[in-house]
Amino acid sequence: MFDKVNLAEKLALFDDLWAPRTVGRFEGYELRIAKVKGEFTWHRHDLTDEFFYVVSGRLTIRLRDQKIELNAGELYVVPRGVEHQPYAEEEAHIFMIELAGTLNTGDENTAAPQREI
Amino acid sequence: MFDKVNLAEKLALFDDLWAPRTVGRFEGYELRIAKVKGEFTWHRHDLTDEFFYVVSGRLTIRLRDQKIELNAGELYVVPRGVEHQPYAEEEAHIFMIELAGTLNTGDENTAAPQREI
Repeated sequence: MFDKVNLAEKLALFDDLWAPRTVGRFEGYELRIAKVKGEFTWHRHDLTDEFFYVVSGRLTIRLRDQKIELNAGELYVVPRGVEHQPYAEEEAHIFMIELAGTLNTGDENTAAPQREI
Repeated sequence: MFDKVNLAEKLALFDDLWAPRTVGRFEGYELRIAKVKGEFTWHRHDLTDEFFYVVSGRLTIRLRDQKIELNAGELYVVPRGVEHQPYAEEEAHIFMIELAGTLNTGDENTAAPQREI
């Protein structure tokens, strides 16, 4: 059983971008936070949906046929297998849920290390 | 594929307490919101962890051996099988994730209806 998690407090502990930290677990999924700015790589996750919730700032999730604009307090689930490209014009702080062990870029050659915080 | 969800906008659509609304899905789980005030029943869910995130207000999750005090922006996961009693002195607005079809009281005789919004 883990402690409660204060997202803002956890987000204050690091500054690097596109480098998710795992803050807890739910079922077989990891609860992760990240700071993002700029354009991430196009990728997909074939084994898991990806849950996005914006804690602060604005996040755009580009899909091949549309884009989803998320403000703070908004969530979106990218279904498994769907290509997407996160983008943030200014720094945004986000909360994500995905299958434990999921690589953030979907590619072991480019993925950020798996870290807990 | 569902649309993005603005939690505050969805919460503004209803007023009844302890009556969760499903706003989306992630894997085999339902994303739910609820307004709560006062003391809920002690219960447990044997088939799913239960994810709690406080959107506004304060929520206490009483466990048999401790209590978890959650403010806005804080989350906690009650592991499957663990008895818990949510409590809020003043009205609080919460976001939850649990296995699709989970009964809010853990008991079909007392559970709120399953509703989407």
